[in-house]
Amino acid sequence: MQRTLSRRRFIASAAAASVLPATLGHAGIPSSSVLGFPGDEPSAAPAGSVWDKAGVIDLTHSPFAKLKTVPVRAVTIEDGFWAKRRATNINSSIPSMHDELVAHGRMNNFLRLEGESSVSQTGPVYSDSDIYKWTEAVGFSLQTADHPELRKTTETMIQEVVAAQEPGGYLNTYYVGDRKPLRMLYPTQETGHELYNIGHLLQGSIAYYRATGDRTLLDAGIRFIDQFLIPGYGPGKNQKGIVAGHPEIEMALVELYRTTGKREYVDLAGYILRGDDRIPLTSGQITYMFCGIPFTSRTKLEGHAVRAMYACCGATDYYLETGDADYWKTLNHLWADLAEHQLYVTGGVGAREAGEAFGDAYELPNARAYGESCAAIGNMMWNWRMLAASGDARFADVMERALYNGINSGMSLDGTTYCYRNPLAFDPSGDSRDRHSPEGHIRNPWYDTTCCPPNLERTFASLPGYFYSTSEDGVYVHLYDNSKMDWQLQDGKGLQMVQTTNYPWEGDVKLTVSPSAPAEFAVYVRIPGWSAKSTVKVNGRQMEGAEPGKYFAIRREWSANDVIELSFDMTTQLLKANPAVVEDHGRVAFQRGPLVYCMEHLDQTDQQYGMNLTYFSTHLGAETSARFEPGLLDGVMVLEHPGSLSHPVQAEGLYFSASKTERLQEAPTTLKLIPYYAWANRGPAGMQVWIPYKNV
Amino acid sequence: MQRTLSRRRFIASAAAASVLPATLGHAGIPSSSVLGFPGDEPSAAPAGSVWDKAGVIDLTHSPFAKLKTVPVRAVTIEDGFWAKRRATNINSSIPSMHDELVAHGRMNNFLRLEGESSVSQTGPVYSDSDIYKWTEAVGFSLQTADHPELRKTTETMIQEVVAAQEPGGYLNTYYVGDRKPLRMLYPTQETGHELYNIGHLLQGSIAYYRATGDRTLLDAGIRFIDQFLIPGYGPGKNQKGIVAGHPEIEMALVELYRTTGKREYVDLAGYILRGDDRIPLTSGQITYMFCGIPFTSRTKLEGHAVRAMYACCGATDYYLETGDADYWKTLNHLWADLAEHQLYVTGGVGAREAGEAFGDAYELPNARAYGESCAAIGNMMWNWRMLAASGDARFADVMERALYNGINSGMSLDGTTYCYRNPLAFDPSGDSRDRHSPEGHIRNPWYDTTCCPPNLERTFASLPGYFYSTSEDGVYVHLYDNSKMDWQLQDGKGLQMVQTTNYPWEGDVKLTVSPSAPAEFAVYVRIPGWSAKSTVKVNGRQMEGAEPGKYFAIRREWSANDVIELSFDMTTQLLKANPAVVEDHGRVAFQRGPLVYCMEHLDQTDQQYGMNLTYFSTHLGAETSARFEPGLLDGVMVLEHPGSLSHPVQAEGLYFSASKTERLQEAPTTLKLIPYYAWANRGPAGMQVWIPYKNV
Repeated sequence: MQRTLSRRRFIASAAAASVLPATLGHAGIPSSSVLGFPGDEPSAAPAGSVWDKAGVIDLTHSPFAKLKTVPVRAVTIEDGFWAKRRATNINSSIPSMHDELVAHGRMNNFLRLEGESSVSQTGPVYSDSDIYKWTEAVGFSLQTADHPELRKTTETMIQEVVAAQEPGGYLNTYYVGDRKPLRMLYPTQETGHELYNIGHLLQGSIAYYRATGDRTLLDAGIRFIDQFLIPGYGPGKNQKGIVAGHPEIEMALVELYRTTGKREYVDLAGYILRGDDRIPLTSGQITYMFCGIPFTSRTKLEGHAVRAMYACCGATDYYLETGDADYWKTLNHLWADLAEHQLYVTGGVGAREAGEAFGDAYELPNARAYGESCAAIGNMMWNWRMLAASGDARFADVMERALYNGINSGMSLDGTTYCYRNPLAFDPSGDSRDRHSPEGHIRNPWYDTTCCPPNLERTFASLPGYFYSTSEDGVYVHLYDNSKMDWQLQDGKGLQMVQTTNYPWEGDVKLTVSPSAPAEFAVYVRIPGWSAKSTVKVNGRQMEGAEPGKYFAIRREWSANDVIELSFDMTTQLLKANPAVVEDHGRVAFQRGPLVYCMEHLDQTDQQYGMNLTYFSTHLGAETSARFEPGLLDGVMVLEHPGSLSHPVQAEGLYFSASKTERLQEAPTTLKLIPYYAWANRGPAGMQVWIPYKNV
Repeated sequence: MQRTLSRRRFIASAAAASVLPATLGHAGIPSSSVLGFPGDEPSAAPAGSVWDKAGVIDLTHSPFAKLKTVPVRAVTIEDGFWAKRRATNINSSIPSMHDELVAHGRMNNFLRLEGESSVSQTGPVYSDSDIYKWTEAVGFSLQTADHPELRKTTETMIQEVVAAQEPGGYLNTYYVGDRKPLRMLYPTQETGHELYNIGHLLQGSIAYYRATGDRTLLDAGIRFIDQFLIPGYGPGKNQKGIVAGHPEIEMALVELYRTTGKREYVDLAGYILRGDDRIPLTSGQITYMFCGIPFTSRTKLEGHAVRAMYACCGATDYYLETGDADYWKTLNHLWADLAEHQLYVTGGVGAREAGEAFGDAYELPNARAYGESCAAIGNMMWNWRMLAASGDARFADVMERALYNGINSGMSLDGTTYCYRNPLAFDPSGDSRDRHSPEGHIRNPWYDTTCCPPNLERTFASLPGYFYSTSEDGVYVHLYDNSKMDWQLQDGKGLQMVQTTNYPWEGDVKLTVSPSAPAEFAVYVRIPGWSAKSTVKVNGRQMEGAEPGKYFAIRREWSANDVIELSFDMTTQLLKANPAVVEDHGRVAFQRGPLVYCMEHLDQTDQQYGMNLTYFSTHLGAETSARFEPGLLDGVMVLEHPGSLSHPVQAEGLYFSASKTERLQEAPTTLKLIPYYAWANRGPAGMQVWIPYKNV
């Protein structure tokens, strides 16, 4: 039994919240208030963030970032594909997730430490992190627009969290009471998620600080690091060593450095990334946790997929600040492993349910794909950092693939249910259902391990920050949707960019470029890897040389209202997989623009054989037609393609002579496909991304 | 460090062994000495075994066995396919396994309890079972022929084992000393394998007793059950409950009943099969352990494959003694699950490495197949019991499939190395190597969990017992090889059967039937399921009505030297799998007679692309040719079939447009295939059973 904080209490707490110092909203914010922390020594390190000028991560002063982030608040996403998803996120997902977190006792875990609740601790060791990740989602949302009630609720929650912090800086609702002696022991460091929780606290607090200027939670995080972690733990002789257990703290520490300017946090991240050989670890732990040995000794992606992705994020952040060439070498090697052997066509990663892990090279099962939403998000976050380090469009291609497909599938269209797993085939009558859900549903409003829902929420909330970067010589355009950027070039010159498009349904994008005064600089427009033939026009004049999977640089003197017109190739592509991917043998996947498609059984004309899609095949040589259906799944472009439906052979048993196949009867049919992200929004149905083909 | 018992010590101990009461060898044995155990009450239960008249299991008095076992010693396998494997087993495998067991301290574990060794306990909790399973292999071997030195060695080992038994009957080398308080606690019952060990002790001791009349080890097993287990554990109010943890004890208890006539052992097996609801178990444990709830409530195969197979063996044994219809219903339902959803074409079972477990229905990956040798053996043992209960040839078909393929592959041709996993595809340069071996070898002389090697040894040693059964109205012929049976019909009339054949390379079998006096009875000859067209002749006259996958009954008056001639259809079959088996999509497997074939890379004419078989395909419409190669792999029939080799597309990356496929160049080639059981005997090579096909 656990006490439930009701909706009533939610509102009551919000109403009782004190007014915090920072005024909210875009206007009226003291916009150059660099954090000056008491006790900070003057240092040669670059200054910390200007709090309301930071992007998803803040690369303003990162010496090895070729591309600098643009503030989330500088970009407004307007009516279109992502605006709809983001409205659902703020209006439905974030509030309902709050209620779920409260109803499942996750805030009670803090309140009980303050004598406000007598019920016992609830949820797994990483439960605190879900509160922090939700706070981060709020923080990113408030960087776009104020939501006063949500802000007040969050302020109250932050106060309740901070009140649970011990005088020595320790903050965790699990390792208290009888479990206090277990704190930071080596077995606890490996499995207890103490630093994972704090990493999320830091990320959440930084996003909230960057939205509001409110540093209450951030200060609590800094106290944990400065007063508890650094004095007791680290490489020193009088310190106990650290192993991350679940990587996350590394990138959080680098972001804390970027926020405060205190170099010690980068050094601590580097120490954790190197691993401490005083800590005894088995080879199984080293594989699974993706930490504990020098990051630069890694040669492949393996073990728990989210851990590996977060470790790669932290290592790239560390590279962006230090330029350590060994890191860059290792990161590129691991990225090649990702792209050549481990990446689902949906941008998801992590093939295996056992250990939520990467499989062997080319081990990419479909129905049994794990493809945890968090792992796809980690993949996007990592590629975002690699892109910043290099300006190489291949990282943006992977980012876009993950965002539109394997991440976007994680949240239902109404924003109230979530996928933990994102398989590429599904049989609701079969065994391969979601084992995280007692009912076997693939989408659920809550998971006892509820890492994915707030992770999806923070991702959609931070999306404006991923559209653009600046470079020394101009501006990069990474993503396409109706939007406005109001920011500046690195020389401080103001720059507005306006996108008008029906992307991803159509391939035309109009970009209006308006510098505050005429100036020569480059606009780098991303030509997606999937666009075989693209055209680029500037003020009506066609430019030559746009290549798929590259940024196309348009270097000229720009004046207000110059227009770039992009036209991408939206021809539907039938993709094959490398023959070493055994489950995709003899199958194709459909992709149109950035969107990967799937068949759901309930869209097919032939409704025989229950919900089983096994007996459909597609004709390789035929043409695909695309048609927008405004009433379907909040409006999607559907694909239709000729195919066949054969009679089942199940009566023949598990194995049968190939010569008996001739007896199968086949009927022509038309396959209807929907974007993968929109699957499982209309009740149980068979689904498949990879469809058997015939050479017709 | 552990003390190693050297080969020298082996011989010394053997020489020092005392002479045991039973005289050995076929001649001179008091052949009707039913065990009379002190304290046995006279009972209405059928008498126990005649010790030297028992089969693999002894169904002489089992009321629900339609078929009765024939003694192992009544059948002599002569020169041919199995004689060679069995000679290797007794001359190479069993002696070298003894040395491995001793070298790895498994006997020391007993000696240290007798003060004979000061080194500490070695190996996992189930280490004792490997000694017992090895003893069972010796026991079955001695039922065929005496091997005096091996017998002496075994007598010494048995004395050393029995000397470690405690006065109260407890016998286990792991739960001693500091671990003594853990004995039979519920966590220990679930994971500690105490009863698994004792189950194997009973099976080993019964096989050894049936070979030699020596009941030293058997008495020790009975003391454990009578003095320790039954008084302390069971369903009674003053007993603690039992959960098998790893099923095995169930079938051992039923066999102990068959050996002693003491009905209490069947009742105890039934109690364990029902599960004791006083023992708290999680649903995960219930799935994984395949015990702890009523066996009759099971609806599918799941969890640890060996546990599930052994549980099914025990449940079938229980049915054979009790006729409980609920058991028969459940067993048939589970068998249908096996045959329709879970059976590899090799007869192996257990798809997943994680938990060594059954996967979902149709989850039958190839390179990642687990297919533990022990699970295939459990599958054969279960089907043997189902066959006895029913006389239905479908069980014999599965038994033969497992024996010739997924079991036979488990032991190298020279008998000194073993497969733990038996995958259906292999890339020695890839990741999917054997994780039980530090070097990643698929065949190893020793595993720290060395369950499979002695399991393979006991199976080959017991093989003569699987060839025939008797029924009320005659005799059943299950397996084919050069052999002689010298036994009797159920009415006591003597019967000799002589098989002459070149099976499995050729499909002709000559069976000479010689009753001791002319008599009318039925000879049931098995028509294998794979033989589409079979002919049966009696004394040269063709009989009508032989159907694949059935026993063909020849009921007539038989006289000495009557001849049955069988001719089976050895046309190579190209098999497809049910389309729900996603990894077999677009692929075929080759089967000829009972043998499933595979490609090894080193047999192919085209040796490009390292050891990777990915780029070969086979032509569906073409003819296969078969040719015996006496010098290859101890003599095998090889298959040759037209195919193609295409250039690799790896340069195209993980995914590529289907239209680019046209650029692939293909060259015709001839694929060469060898029997699956013989793979991995010539150094590392790529291997695949399921080969991509083209409709050429």
